[in-house]
Amino acid sequence: MIRVGVIGYGYWGPNIVRNFNMIDGAEVAAICDKNPLSAQRARKNYPNLLITENSAEIVQSPDIDLVTVITPVSTHYELAKQALLNGKHVFVEKPFTSNTKQAAELIEIAGKKNLKIMVDHTFLFTSAVRKIKQIIEDDVLGELYYYDSTRVNLGLFQHDVNVIWDLAPHDFSIMDYLIKEKPDAVAASGKAHINSKEDIAYIMVYFSKNIIAHLNVNWLSPVKLRTTLIGGEKKMLMWNDVDADEKIKVYDRGVEITNSEGIYNLLVNYRSGDMWAPKVDQIEALKLETQYFVDCINKNEEPFNNGHAGLRVVRMLEACDESLKNNGRMVKL
Amino acid sequence: MIRVGVIGYGYWGPNIVRNFNMIDGAEVAAICDKNPLSAQRARKNYPNLLITENSAEIVQSPDIDLVTVITPVSTHYELAKQALLNGKHVFVEKPFTSNTKQAAELIEIAGKKNLKIMVDHTFLFTSAVRKIKQIIEDDVLGELYYYDSTRVNLGLFQHDVNVIWDLAPHDFSIMDYLIKEKPDAVAASGKAHINSKEDIAYIMVYFSKNIIAHLNVNWLSPVKLRTTLIGGEKKMLMWNDVDADEKIKVYDRGVEITNSEGIYNLLVNYRSGDMWAPKVDQIEALKLETQYFVDCINKNEEPFNNGHAGLRVVRMLEACDESLKNNGRMVKL
Amino acid sequence: MIRVGVIGYGYWGPNIVRNFNMIDGAEVAAICDKNPLSAQRARKNYPNLLITENSAEIVQSPDIDLVTVITPVSTHYELAKQALLNGKHVFVEKPFTSNTKQAAELIEIAGKKNLKIMVDHTFLFTSAVRKIKQIIEDDVLGELYYYDSTRVNLGLFQHDVNVIWDLAPHDFSIMDYLIKEKPDAVAASGKAHINSKEDIAYIMVYFSKNIIAHLNVNWLSPVKLRTTLIGGEKKMLMWNDVDADEKIKVYDRGVEITNSEGIYNLLVNYRSGDMWAPKVDQIEALKLETQYFVDCINKNEEPFNNGHAGLRVVRMLEACDESLKNNGRMVKL
Amino acid sequence: MIRVGVIGYGYWGPNIVRNFNMIDGAEVAAICDKNPLSAQRARKNYPNLLITENSAEIVQSPDIDLVTVITPVSTHYELAKQALLNGKHVFVEKPFTSNTKQAAELIEIAGKKNLKIMVDHTFLFTSAVRKIKQIIEDDVLGELYYYDSTRVNLGLFQHDVNVIWDLAPHDFSIMDYLIKEKPDAVAASGKAHINSKEDIAYIMVYFSKNIIAHLNVNWLSPVKLRTTLIGGEKKMLMWNDVDADEKIKVYDRGVEITNSEGIYNLLVNYRSGDMWAPKVDQIEALKLETQYFVDCINKNEEPFNNGHAGLRVVRMLEACDESLKNNGRMVKL
Repeated sequence: MIRVGVIGYGYWGPNIVRNFNMIDGAEVAAICDKNPLSAQRARKNYPNLLITENSAEIVQSPDIDLVTVITPVSTHYELAKQALLNGKHVFVEKPFTSNTKQAAELIEIAGKKNLKIMVDHTFLFTSAVRKIKQIIEDDVLGELYYYDSTRVNLGLFQHDVNVIWDLAPHDFSIMDYLIKEKPDAVAASGKAHINSKEDIAYIMVYFSKNIIAHLNVNWLSPVKLRTTLIGGEKKMLMWNDVDADEKIKVYDRGVEITNSEGIYNLLVNYRSGDMWAPKVDQIEALKLETQYFVDCINKNEEPFNNGHAGLRVVRMLEACDESLKNNGRMVKL
Repeated sequence: MIRVGVIGYGYWGPNIVRNFNMIDGAEVAAICDKNPLSAQRARKNYPNLLITENSAEIVQSPDIDLVTVITPVSTHYELAKQALLNGKHVFVEKPFTSNTKQAAELIEIAGKKNLKIMVDHTFLFTSAVRKIKQIIEDDVLGELYYYDSTRVNLGLFQHDVNVIWDLAPHDFSIMDYLIKEKPDAVAASGKAHINSKEDIAYIMVYFSKNIIAHLNVNWLSPVKLRTTLIGGEKKMLMWNDVDADEKIKVYDRGVEITNSEGIYNLLVNYRSGDMWAPKVDQIEALKLETQYFVDCINKNEEPFNNGHAGLRVVRMLEACDESLKNNGRMVKL
Repeated sequence: MIRVGVIGYGYWGPNIVRNFNMIDGAEVAAICDKNPLSAQRARKNYPNLLITENSAEIVQSPDIDLVTVITPVSTHYELAKQALLNGKHVFVEKPFTSNTKQAAELIEIAGKKNLKIMVDHTFLFTSAVRKIKQIIEDDVLGELYYYDSTRVNLGLFQHDVNVIWDLAPHDFSIMDYLIKEKPDAVAASGKAHINSKEDIAYIMVYFSKNIIAHLNVNWLSPVKLRTTLIGGEKKMLMWNDVDADEKIKVYDRGVEITNSEGIYNLLVNYRSGDMWAPKVDQIEALKLETQYFVDCINKNEEPFNNGHAGLRVVRMLEACDESLKNNGRMVKL
Repeated sequence: MIRVGVIGYGYWGPNIVRNFNMIDGAEVAAICDKNPLSAQRARKNYPNLLITENSAEIVQSPDIDLVTVITPVSTHYELAKQALLNGKHVFVEKPFTSNTKQAAELIEIAGKKNLKIMVDHTFLFTSAVRKIKQIIEDDVLGELYYYDSTRVNLGLFQHDVNVIWDLAPHDFSIMDYLIKEKPDAVAASGKAHINSKEDIAYIMVYFSKNIIAHLNVNWLSPVKLRTTLIGGEKKMLMWNDVDADEKIKVYDRGVEITNSEGIYNLLVNYRSGDMWAPKVDQIEALKLETQYFVDCINKNEEPFNNGHAGLRVVRMLEACDESLKNNGRMVKL
């Protein structure tokens, strides 16, 4: 039985507690939140657990095997480091750390002490992303042409990060998971209308291969859009995450060059065939993810969403910030 | 009665002929297309008109007052120039010319000879854009925050231009019409998958003021999307041009800073009120536009979509090309 | 070459003329409309044809082989009868006649004189209905459970018929085409709000087999809905005719009884699998239909949408009227 | 403090418990479910409460003021009666009872003992229905023309009732709430495909005034539809309950008779104006409803969704059953 200490009981923490309690082989032993109101709420919900406002009681506890860090990103590094130094596995909310240097140091400590790091890229455990992964691996789409994501809504403004650090980790981790090629460079432009942090931003991601990626993230949209188009040589896919019933649609559509005779003739042919919406299960992603982490620990296996995956995402975020500061200039990774 | 000579009878030309024949004060006198099949088609539809494959018969005809140039963009300059030099008013398909130098020269010739140039930015005459213009001028949205357009579908691949020159003139002309501030710079990134012309591209448009604009143009999308979000300080608007019934939705939604006490408190408040979809008339845009041009000629007034408006759009397109060649670098206008 | 005389040049007549002129083996020779404005319009569009306000010039003309009757339903019988008696094939707008007696008489005359009757059930020639027909014949849906159609919009109020006679012929002819079993009885309820004709009505169609059908027709709906659900034992289908891209969706969904142990246990299991939207071609239905009629005449073959099909639809309409007058009582067919 | 005993801890019971615990002036004292698994679940969730499988422990307990009956409909009468006879107020799941005789008897007992009955017509407390109520009372729609509801999905088959008793109580209670006129008669047709209970049914509701109502209920639909059209003389409304953002749309559309000159002229004019989607709050309906019941008890006021309202809905259901058995014959109320 892996005993879990949860640090951070705000918006997401209660889900972490519930899921670690639901799965086999784990149970939550303690909860910490330095905000007295949150601690009080945890106490009410879990009267039999240790509830504390002092994270040291968690990271130093001899009763705890695994520490989850579900706090603002600026605190991830220090809390995760203390947990690792005290011999705990760590499960860290995304984005992993505030910069790549911190991420690399945590990876190094975990490696030396043979501890596991999992970064909470929850989307990778959704049925939708798992289905898309399978579609791509089955070569249904053929060579990938583009990945184009729109992720906009009327914010939940974050106090410590801009819209890119809030929303883009989802797409960066999904792209890292779905696209075999690794990106070469990014460019980002944005604007801060409400306070000093960008609330709207556009990100280009460049690859050496033929694929191009683009993210549209916005805290000031009147409507919630969660649409990703993935174009391939053979077929094209649309993932609409706000559609309850038909999240994924695979279109048998495309173009092919057929001839090029004469400047006034069209050079390409269009193909427009059936559309297919595969069934997408409704399993809670976090349940799969927490179970997977417990299994990795028990089998001493490295999770695919480990510290290295977290670091790759942070490197993208860092590069975006650098590009933002330089008029949207392309920044090599 | 203004007598019109139409050069170019491919996809759009028949609409031009039909509309100039429908309105008051004008009639089509001659049609030219150098493609014999198109000329043959014109002959069948209009047996009583002069149909020719030789544009000189149009531009030099003493019977013609107004020449419309509905041909590939690379031919606009030469045809329009000949028409102007022969004393004809010109109506030129968008984009106006292949470069700003050509545009400036045409404007100069027209000025000297007191002839009118109209660039066919048809979208400015649609009921949807006219309604949005009115909403913005009535200050319903307040100070503008962003203009974000997605204009994607399964191509009509063009043989001589990339996707930006094909699709972005719509948005550039609409922005030029709707947004008081003039842009300072653009940046564009894209990729050519099918032939040597970019078939997918993303464009940033920068202003000195608080507003930011972005265009997503793509010939390789499995679905047709025509969605523009316009965010303002007071309200936000979504224009979905593929929605037959509710093209424009105005949302009484927004955010406002209310306090900033403590790092864990939210800094902003959300406002979520009613939505309103104004009625959008179904008048053919081209009918309004052609009538407007005839009126401008008769009253000797300058149309707002004149050569200068066309030149401003071409300048944006030129800058996009330069940015494309330089890794998406920002290009000052 | 079959020479066609078109009677009725209002809303639908011009399409009839255009299509008979487009297809092989036929050409329009004359057009009649007793409304002088419509006749004038025909004269302008087709200056070389005989245009008349007197239908006798059509039905008695020795130059005409086929007469199309595209007039209000109350005039169908007399015009079609005259045409048949003068040895012309007839193409009659739906609904075929004002009552079954008239329909039976026309069928008898045509039979004696070996002439063809086609009733213009255009929907049967749309790609959507043809695709659904194929899906049902391939037994994709299994035994049919129900046919449920909603056909509502802000009317085109008819001056001489109620909403059932206006809209239900579409569904009656489609059901007649798609469903092997023939209906036993109908029941109809409705209300007249604007004038003395029902503008909203609901129709039940009963069969001896397990299938049940229902139509919702309404001239007073604020939105246009054209949705038909067809449930089967194996799969279920939704046809949304106002969806430009995905008109037909086939759902691998259903229920099956699995056990019945205990009153508090659920008795059935749900199956929820993939959805599939087959490509639906965009061919003009009327072109197929007119070509099919010409072919039937040339091969001396009976069209499937012949007078008998038209009569079956009129019988349903008659029964609906009887039910309307009797508080929605079931009326045997 | 009103002490609540909850009978029935299946699908809906836990929501009842949670809400009575959440609101002011009430607390849950005991929970009963005769299914040992449900009782066990209640015990785990509420270790400090009395949990029993014997309803007598609830209805006879001197510690309990209010009994909620959240069990299959066939048990409502007996449980509610025992509760009332023991001096408890009762909150009964919809539909109120299995027949009107039972409902009348419960009302009589409650009246004699000055106890309150509330029937759980939850929909009346949703923000959507409350907003529609306000729109109708403000006379935005004018005189009502029709109420047309589609409530279909892939069922949760009920073991003891047909689809009408399962789904139609929602619409019957909503119509009872929204429409001033009371219905005169109903007619219902349906079919049982899976077991002996109808799984698909269509219901007509007749009024002496100009309004007509229609319900389409179906457990065998591949898609979930929850759409209600309400047409009025002045405006029309669409309520789409599966649309998260724009549940209610009010259309400034309609028709008006303008002239009737000549049989071939249209008799009516169309009006097509703006659409308006009022903000619909996201408050949990059950919270409002339970609070309202506690307030009614404390103030000794009759709730509007009392036993009489419950009885009116049961009378409609009874009449539907009678009509079902008689070929859809109209049944007077």
